[in-house]
Amino acid sequence: MDEHKFIQAGIINIGDEILIGQIHNTNARFIAHELTAMGVYVKKILIVGDEKEDILSAFDEVLTCCDIVIVTGGLGSTNDDITKDCICRYFHRDLTENKIVLNHLQSIINTRKIKVPNSIFLQAMLPERSEVIANEVGLAPGIWIEDNGKILVAIPGVPQEMQAMLWDVLKKIQAHYHVNQHIIYKHIQTFGISEASLSEKLSDFENKLPPCIKLAYLPKAGYVSLRLTGYGASVKELETELEKQLSYLSHYIDEHIFSYENKTLSELVADKLKEQNQLFAVAESCTGGYIAHLTTLIPGSSKYFKGGVVAYSNEIKCNILQVEQQTINQHGAVSREVVMQMAKNVLQLYKVDYAIAVSGIAGPGGGSVEKPVGTVWIAVADTNNVYAKCFSLGNNRERIIQQSANMALYMLYKLL
Amino acid sequence: MDEHKFIQAGIINIGDEILIGQIHNTNARFIAHELTAMGVYVKKILIVGDEKEDILSAFDEVLTCCDIVIVTGGLGSTNDDITKDCICRYFHRDLTENKIVLNHLQSIINTRKIKVPNSIFLQAMLPERSEVIANEVGLAPGIWIEDNGKILVAIPGVPQEMQAMLWDVLKKIQAHYHVNQHIIYKHIQTFGISEASLSEKLSDFENKLPPCIKLAYLPKAGYVSLRLTGYGASVKELETELEKQLSYLSHYIDEHIFSYENKTLSELVADKLKEQNQLFAVAESCTGGYIAHLTTLIPGSSKYFKGGVVAYSNEIKCNILQVEQQTINQHGAVSREVVMQMAKNVLQLYKVDYAIAVSGIAGPGGGSVEKPVGTVWIAVADTNNVYAKCFSLGNNRERIIQQSANMALYMLYKLL
Repeated sequence: MDEHKFIQAGIINIGDEILIGQIHNTNARFIAHELTAMGVYVKKILIVGDEKEDILSAFDEVLTCCDIVIVTGGLGSTNDDITKDCICRYFHRDLTENKIVLNHLQSIINTRKIKVPNSIFLQAMLPERSEVIANEVGLAPGIWIEDNGKILVAIPGVPQEMQAMLWDVLKKIQAHYHVNQHIIYKHIQTFGISEASLSEKLSDFENKLPPCIKLAYLPKAGYVSLRLTGYGASVKELETELEKQLSYLSHYIDEHIFSYENKTLSELVADKLKEQNQLFAVAESCTGGYIAHLTTLIPGSSKYFKGGVVAYSNEIKCNILQVEQQTINQHGAVSREVVMQMAKNVLQLYKVDYAIAVSGIAGPGGGSVEKPVGTVWIAVADTNNVYAKCFSLGNNRERIIQQSANMALYMLYKLL
Repeated sequence: MDEHKFIQAGIINIGDEILIGQIHNTNARFIAHELTAMGVYVKKILIVGDEKEDILSAFDEVLTCCDIVIVTGGLGSTNDDITKDCICRYFHRDLTENKIVLNHLQSIINTRKIKVPNSIFLQAMLPERSEVIANEVGLAPGIWIEDNGKILVAIPGVPQEMQAMLWDVLKKIQAHYHVNQHIIYKHIQTFGISEASLSEKLSDFENKLPPCIKLAYLPKAGYVSLRLTGYGASVKELETELEKQLSYLSHYIDEHIFSYENKTLSELVADKLKEQNQLFAVAESCTGGYIAHLTTLIPGSSKYFKGGVVAYSNEIKCNILQVEQQTINQHGAVSREVVMQMAKNVLQLYKVDYAIAVSGIAGPGGGSVEKPVGTVWIAVADTNNVYAKCFSLGNNRERIIQQSANMALYMLYKLL
């Protein structure tokens, strides 16, 4: 990959709470994704704490090797917010009051009728010779500084504010650099084959890839996604080359590919159900509502999802889902027979076209020699038939829940 | 904070998939959390792509300012895995075959009866004069190298493998440095007050804090956590000082504090229910199974959670949860009346002591002038009473779901 043709960007996230592992750094992922999508090459991401020296040296490290750095965090009005001070010191600038920001703050406070401390008005103090990135969601404005051919952008670390402001930042970057390099992705989703086996099957393909295209392996919970990334100036040429390589690749692992879309399994299921104008419901034991959650995260899911029953006790399986007590006594709650009854009954109860049912042992307790932790039965039903399958999914509770959900959604996807 | 008394560590995560924003960097958080807990100061986290030059310069940057660096990723046997090559080049060492690793690989392959490509055996080639961190979960061994007073540790990027191996790494670090510095945290969870207002109320307190103690603001979905961090050599002195500061802090914001435990709301609810030996269930519309999911993520949750109904259509609210059609016609599905019926009825249906019900407009569609996106009604019920409250939670679908779940769990927590 000839990365030097690209605008190179770095991301700096400031905040002790990331360094001590208290929160996920979701901002870096969001920004990296958006920069990449517009053809900017993200070269590094750096996380440092709320310490002046560490922030200054982070500015230096990233601006040495990148054209632009996007900084998040430390722009609030509490005492641990020192990003603005660091920017002034690094670029040798003073703070000056920005009247537009001041008026904007005043109008927000008036409109929302909220009581705020006076320190809020410090937000209107900005480094001289900088531009404002307006914050329509919160109070702290963003800062855009150009210096010595490099650009530093600072925006708040609160995800909603950061996300709302990033669009303006991206537009300014595009205008500033006249971006005309392109990165194009092709996605390949596979099921039922490990990363190592995929890699063996594709080693020949990989060795013959042209330098402008890269292959990456992205293991998910229960399946593996592949990504081809193409870099170049001409979208048309790049598309042609990528399509050619994609067809070579498909040839090697054809029987394992279930989608070429960069979508989650719940999104793929959603597309098919909407297309077919059909409804589904779930009966969840060990996944405990996770399949319903993955489904309802998608906007508009009420069009094809009527809901479900979380049956976290045998009593609920019997009383609400009408599973026969005798079946549970005879085969256990984690069995083909129980999961098939759960699927059939929730389908009737919810009057839907398709249903998923899951019953398994997520651990850490509840396992036995015969049915160890990780044993999960999944059934999918339509109005005529019901199919069930058993999986062994390791011994990590969260992973078992995630993998079970994906296995179940995959089984439904194949049935649709 | 006198950070220089501490062992300073850096984390480097290698992988294009993080830089382009395709996956969350959960490894950094996990490692940072564990290092901090054992008293190692995490000074920086750096993410770079699968490019030799970037990896080498990352080694250099981190080893310049830290005593130890933990590297994840790029240890597999596919072509984009180049961490081992970079280690050899950086420390001027060759690869040599490690017989123990070779035998271990062979025995894993024999036991699991899996078909693997021959390239797997490259995993047994390790930098000379390095120690092996055994991998009991996967195939790639970890590497521990000491050089010039600094330590570099490389472990796989697959979260389960990384997590399993990290314990050995932490033990080796502890043994190597005779760690005797301590970091102690105190947590304060607040509800019903914004970060800015907390900061104003606490400005006096913050100004008087001794240098060995820091205050951090950690906004969550719907509430704000605070954290006091104390640094020092004597656990006893540190505990005394922290307890003193904690009681000062509580004095300023007493009416907003609901817990001093570093637990999620679902964990706090779990503790109370287990203590009282009682059961609960949920009826979820707009949260779509998320409260059930948060609850069932906790090991042992079947002891106090019987499950619930995800009612993602009015028909299900009426047919399964026995909400009166007339009530929905008269007040709408998002109303005090409907959510109260949902709570009362799921309590009876599931035969539990407590119930939560949520109905709201998560958007982006479905809003009106009267009930805009973000309007959420929540009810909690016990066997005698039911209480309902209305919230306005902004316009971001995922945030509305998260905040609604926390508001509901908080209402239940206060009722218990």
